[in-house]
Amino acid sequence: MASEIDEFLNEWHRVVSKKDLDGLARLLAEDVSLGAPVYWPRFEGRAQVHHLLGLILETIEGFSYRREWSHGSELALEFTGRVGEVELQGIDLVSLDDRFVVSQLDVLIRPANAVEALQEIIAPQMARFLAGG
Amino acid sequence: MASEIDEFLNEWHRVVSKKDLDGLARLLAEDVSLGAPVYWPRFEGRAQVHHLLGLILETIEGFSYRREWSHGSELALEFTGRVGEVELQGIDLVSLDDRFVVSQLDVLIRPANAVEALQEIIAPQMARFLAGG
Repeated sequence: MASEIDEFLNEWHRVVSKKDLDGLARLLAEDVSLGAPVYWPRFEGRAQVHHLLGLILETIEGFSYRREWSHGSELALEFTGRVGEVELQGIDLVSLDDRFVVSQLDVLIRPANAVEALQEIIAPQMARFLAGG
Repeated sequence: MASEIDEFLNEWHRVVSKKDLDGLARLLAEDVSLGAPVYWPRFEGRAQVHHLLGLILETIEGFSYRREWSHGSELALEFTGRVGEVELQGIDLVSLDDRFVVSQLDVLIRPANAVEALQEIIAPQMARFLAGG
């Protein structure tokens, strides 16, 4: 299993560094579920999750992965970056399914003003997407 | 090293579940540094960090650890809980020094309204502490 996890991580890092949204979609299970920094209710399904992750990826500048942990197919991936002038630290908690694509993802970010800055930019775009526009 | 990490984790869990603040102090290095959910600037030194962690521990109800990762002396400890009615998910990113006490800790929490609820309760108490009262 370790080699499949390594393969996933290589592809995940490539996708994030290239902001390759098509590649990102291929790493998400059809029924993937996302716990976002702002809302408690989870986003469900590849279309919603892919769109929101794409917005996050486009909004955070200087995105850089730091410490990484894996335990079986459960991963924790620390990152740093900024929204405008606001520096942030975050972590992706990733569960892979038996096909080694993401079935569950939680994104936690500190500090509070970085989450606010992210929300200000992303919320209107996500609302338009959810409204079908 | 694995057994010292296990020992640290057992004691950390005991301290958190008992809200044992004296025990907590013994797990922190003199020069421990804390990245809190709300502010980007880090809290430095055992006195400040211990006080803030104590407030967080007293304010979060139903505190329960979930997934755990370790990589050498770097740990990632997921937890859930709530502040009043507001549910939250968080993670402690912990660096242990060569004496197996905490030299660096980052606490990330989602969603945003849980961080706000935590801040509302803790900020005035922390301000009083920092003002020497």
